[in-house]
Amino acid sequence: MAKYGTHFSRRAQALTSSVIREVLKLTERPEIISFAGGLPSAQTFPVQALQSACERLFAEAPAASLQYAPTEGLQPLRQWVADKHGVDVSNVLITTGSQQALDLLAKVFIDPGSKVLVEAPTYLGALQAFSLSEPSYAEVPTDESGLQPGLLTEALAAEARFLYTIPNFQNPTGRRLTLERRQALVARAEELGLLLIEDNPYGELRYSGQALPSLHSLNPSGVVYMGSFSKVLAPGLRLGYMIAPADIHAKLVQAKQASDLHTPSFTQRVAYEVLKTGMLDSHIAAVCDLYGKHCSVMLDALSRHMPAGVSWSQPEGGMFIWVELPENIDAMALLEEAVANKVAFVPGAPFYAKNPRHNTMRLAFVTVSPDRIEEGIARLGKLVAGHI
Amino acid sequence: MAKYGTHFSRRAQALTSSVIREVLKLTERPEIISFAGGLPSAQTFPVQALQSACERLFAEAPAASLQYAPTEGLQPLRQWVADKHGVDVSNVLITTGSQQALDLLAKVFIDPGSKVLVEAPTYLGALQAFSLSEPSYAEVPTDESGLQPGLLTEALAAEARFLYTIPNFQNPTGRRLTLERRQALVARAEELGLLLIEDNPYGELRYSGQALPSLHSLNPSGVVYMGSFSKVLAPGLRLGYMIAPADIHAKLVQAKQASDLHTPSFTQRVAYEVLKTGMLDSHIAAVCDLYGKHCSVMLDALSRHMPAGVSWSQPEGGMFIWVELPENIDAMALLEEAVANKVAFVPGAPFYAKNPRHNTMRLAFVTVSPDRIEEGIARLGKLVAGHI
Repeated sequence: MAKYGTHFSRRAQALTSSVIREVLKLTERPEIISFAGGLPSAQTFPVQALQSACERLFAEAPAASLQYAPTEGLQPLRQWVADKHGVDVSNVLITTGSQQALDLLAKVFIDPGSKVLVEAPTYLGALQAFSLSEPSYAEVPTDESGLQPGLLTEALAAEARFLYTIPNFQNPTGRRLTLERRQALVARAEELGLLLIEDNPYGELRYSGQALPSLHSLNPSGVVYMGSFSKVLAPGLRLGYMIAPADIHAKLVQAKQASDLHTPSFTQRVAYEVLKTGMLDSHIAAVCDLYGKHCSVMLDALSRHMPAGVSWSQPEGGMFIWVELPENIDAMALLEEAVANKVAFVPGAPFYAKNPRHNTMRLAFVTVSPDRIEEGIARLGKLVAGHI
Repeated sequence: MAKYGTHFSRRAQALTSSVIREVLKLTERPEIISFAGGLPSAQTFPVQALQSACERLFAEAPAASLQYAPTEGLQPLRQWVADKHGVDVSNVLITTGSQQALDLLAKVFIDPGSKVLVEAPTYLGALQAFSLSEPSYAEVPTDESGLQPGLLTEALAAEARFLYTIPNFQNPTGRRLTLERRQALVARAEELGLLLIEDNPYGELRYSGQALPSLHSLNPSGVVYMGSFSKVLAPGLRLGYMIAPADIHAKLVQAKQASDLHTPSFTQRVAYEVLKTGMLDSHIAAVCDLYGKHCSVMLDALSRHMPAGVSWSQPEGGMFIWVELPENIDAMALLEEAVANKVAFVPGAPFYAKNPRHNTMRLAFVTVSPDRIEEGIARLGKLVAGHI
């Protein structure tokens, strides 16, 4: 027994390391073709724009960029977010990445045992953040069009603190909620008194199809919206934001003050200096062009190399494809074989809050070059075929 | 009742805004001489060094500075910390400011109702961070030499998850724990199986007296050490660190992963680029020179302007002086009069976890110019005299 082992909190005793992190460590060797990562491609980072932003910042406002700052975030950056989403600046909170937004939601809404609704499957990082507050999870079923509002019964929603959903190009499935389901979900949640948390880190990475309205835009008083600059600028800045009704915003600000006082002034100012130049739209278009090609290459490779009995999502955006294997194949066991064959992915089971499906896997297509995508999927297809 | 008011967690319902933050808002007007702030002086920020660091970073490693990074922190920055403290790099975790370290400790050690020991008074931000995990506080008495290890009884320490202490130039009192008490505290804690949390943001801001060993150096297996770059580089970078025994470190890393994935890669690299030039020692000497003069000016002004019956701490470092007024004066009521007279401070009561002393106040001396310190203390002295 470690010296202070008995001093740990219940939730700390329950903590285990993220499977994804452990897998990433395994697969960092360059000879492995890894579809496991959730990283954006470094070649998309707007280095030149960020460098100019730093130069302007040191020329114009060095002290303010280095001093303590308000918990709510840098005013002009909040205003930029407010303008983009057509909301009042007083509803905007800047966070230290989207992950912190999840932590703040846990603090503000979850007591030990509180019911929390999540999609099945859902984002692993959300489960990690929420679990530190010891909720009781209930899963909302999903299909190829995302969450199924028709299955949101009164019993399922009863006493739930919130429903957490990623409507656009979900992590891990890459699926997008249809317009009809958005409208139905928002109406049903309002009927049930159910607060919706809309996490949207991937919405702007859209390679085909039409833009769809956010849940937040359909019912601002019933939705907390989470945005991120990690996928459209750079994740190393750790910048995200939340848009929330006034009373929820006030609690989130207090929780954030206790969590890290405020997000670094320096990174907020650098990001704002870049954003105010108006470069984001053309930058996102370039990112989408690159990622969209990778997505097509992987979808094409899957259709050529995967044996019958395997199916996968057809993402119109985002970073991930979700693969369903025949029921008898355990993706975790397959991963060991895969790594031996110098290819890697993330098994799907950890993305389920309660009832894991072990025959699933997540493939990331953004950081691997097209020829290596082709080669990696060919290797995976052979391994899967060996089990059928 | 707000729409989702019943959805808030118990701890969120209990949240109130920081008195210090509210006071700061009141006293931001330039005509007010404010001793209320806890901000370092912006004139001490090493702007030139940080600017050069950014230039090198964009020239040499832009992608790595902008990509996701390990939760533990940037390896060379962790190594720098390890070398400075003579510990192994595997025990070092980089945090998003010291405030996050407090949040992580709460997550790893506090269940609802867990006993936590704090000094009376203690740092308000620690109370805010810990309180989100709903501990039950017990206070350890302090005097002019800091925490009193002789009063650390078995009953007081029984079942306590940890004792949180700021041995150097404490916020809010400015007091420093003597060498004898450090040795006694570490021995007594070991005897009691009590984990010590040593928070040391001010230790390097020493204006007189000898350096004293950290509690951590006296017993590395029984102490979690918290350091910060906020007071010696710049708080807007939001960079702190924790040194912890291996089993505790592992839990802190997992809690951090769930909290914000990692501290911004960008600010970590900028800070490391500055630190590796070796400029910190001479920089700290310059900061101490400035702050030490301000401290002397305020101590001198207090002795000339405060009426009999008022006493105050004699800091040898840090940013704060602690004033004890006659028992009949409530510092919160005095603050209203003070603001009307264009001078401000922070009332001492919020710094107590349980039994507030209302006749106390905290004065910050670092950001106000010497002539305004003189003028502000003169005004305060007059107000206090009016109540005696």
